[in-house]
Amino acid sequence: MTSPGPVADIAALQAQIDEAPYHRLVRLVVEEVDAEHGRFVLRLPFSGTLTRHDEGKQVHGGPIASVIDTAGTFAVAAMVGHGVPTMNLRIDYLRPAVDSDLVATAVVRRAGRTTAVCDIDLHDGEGRLVAVGRGTWSTAAP
Amino acid sequence: MTSPGPVADIAALQAQIDEAPYHRLVRLVVEEVDAEHGRFVLRLPFSGTLTRHDEGKQVHGGPIASVIDTAGTFAVAAMVGHGVPTMNLRIDYLRPAVDSDLVATAVVRRAGRTTAVCDIDLHDGEGRLVAVGRGTWSTAAP
Amino acid sequence: MTSPGPVADIAALQAQIDEAPYHRLVRLVVEEVDAEHGRFVLRLPFSGTLTRHDEGKQVHGGPIASVIDTAGTFAVAAMVGHGVPTMNLRIDYLRPAVDSDLVATAVVRRAGRTTAVCDIDLHDGEGRLVAVGRGTWSTAAP
Amino acid sequence: MTSPGPVADIAALQAQIDEAPYHRLVRLVVEEVDAEHGRFVLRLPFSGTLTRHDEGKQVHGGPIASVIDTAGTFAVAAMVGHGVPTMNLRIDYLRPAVDSDLVATAVVRRAGRTTAVCDIDLHDGEGRLVAVGRGTWSTAAP
Repeated sequence: MTSPGPVADIAALQAQIDEAPYHRLVRLVVEEVDAEHGRFVLRLPFSGTLTRHDEGKQVHGGPIASVIDTAGTFAVAAMVGHGVPTMNLRIDYLRPAVDSDLVATAVVRRAGRTTAVCDIDLHDGEGRLVAVGRGTWSTAAP
Repeated sequence: MTSPGPVADIAALQAQIDEAPYHRLVRLVVEEVDAEHGRFVLRLPFSGTLTRHDEGKQVHGGPIASVIDTAGTFAVAAMVGHGVPTMNLRIDYLRPAVDSDLVATAVVRRAGRTTAVCDIDLHDGEGRLVAVGRGTWSTAAP
Repeated sequence: MTSPGPVADIAALQAQIDEAPYHRLVRLVVEEVDAEHGRFVLRLPFSGTLTRHDEGKQVHGGPIASVIDTAGTFAVAAMVGHGVPTMNLRIDYLRPAVDSDLVATAVVRRAGRTTAVCDIDLHDGEGRLVAVGRGTWSTAAP
Repeated sequence: MTSPGPVADIAALQAQIDEAPYHRLVRLVVEEVDAEHGRFVLRLPFSGTLTRHDEGKQVHGGPIASVIDTAGTFAVAAMVGHGVPTMNLRIDYLRPAVDSDLVATAVVRRAGRTTAVCDIDLHDGEGRLVAVGRGTWSTAAP
């Protein structure tokens, strides 16, 4: 693959992310990618539309699950070179995420010919771990 | 609690659902509730804003996780009588969900003084099982 | 397949179970099988060697995980017709299991060409639900 | 706590491990503990009694789940200072574990007043990651 380098990769990945109407709805921002090591960093900017109440600014578990799922999907996809469907995902919510951008860091733990397992840590803007994800993705060629 | 009956319950529960800006964004419709048995049915109407691509009509995993999480939350909450935070959730995606409303049926498996475990099945409009969820909710009094 | 009928099936399945030294160590007893519907029932007889303390008779989580895993494995295997490796498994421990045989009832929720998802409920001798399992098995032909 | 130091800690922890008949059955060896950081390392020595077949030397998933569960339990217990029951556990089996001791390294990700989440990595004797675990433990005072 004649890669034009990391900056272009991020722009191209952001364009891929933005192809999904749901990604545009919640808004997801590509931060980093390392295809070789299966690492992908994705940001969910804070928005009042993603919260649990009109007052208070706690982010709902749904967008948290979404950014974790999408970060894992793109980490595995970057490593195997094609799109991959999520088979299953476990999310543990560790702390309320309040009035803060959230950054998901996905790292592939094991990628085989048919499936991959990926871990995702989600931190808030002050560096607190607010949730963790672990799931399986299908890696079979499409 | 002097309950005015099931119809009013559903209207009141829908109002609670609609308090969350994120629920209004993806749109969730209360279908049934059985507080005694910890059962709650919630519908995610199909919308092009929740899909994975502009073409095609496959619903994204994020809204699927959201309706599963919210159905489980309200099943446990109905049983214990107060709001409950999700501690963790596992979702298994079994089939693509395409161009269809999705209906989540949550059933509490075990509710104790501090936590509850709830199962959620998600069916499409043709009755196919498209995803299943299982998670833990905190039941400690607020 | 010219099956000699359910009684012989159970004897043959018990022989398969007993091929594993670890199964002989904890002792697992085949109770029922329904290959068509992907249903398998497996009993873990109580033994003092499987407990958490010399006094008290609470069964350790390890043998509980083992009977749940094995029941799921044989439910999927019965349905697809060959041995299947466990890919992942979530277990929720709902109640202490004390001084009682435990019966695992596994039901396949979805079996595809590459993987299957199976649910397992574990009851004690008084019919109480003591644990639940859910996992993914590889169904690819060996 | 007037701790007599790490060597004595390990002997005391091994004695605690050995209190459980099931631990003596599969045999678990304490390797390291760091109570402050919630880290615990536990070894499962290879034994032919823990395998899937009389021929071949693949370790069964049951003892793998057991060493992962017990390592997580003791990591959380070391951090909070008392015994803790496992609430739930997800295990992903990544590679067959063949004819090798297995070493589980548990690290607490988040410990609160009522629950803790802990990750466990399991490596074989050649340093390969063979399985990962993630679960929730109750940390409420007994």
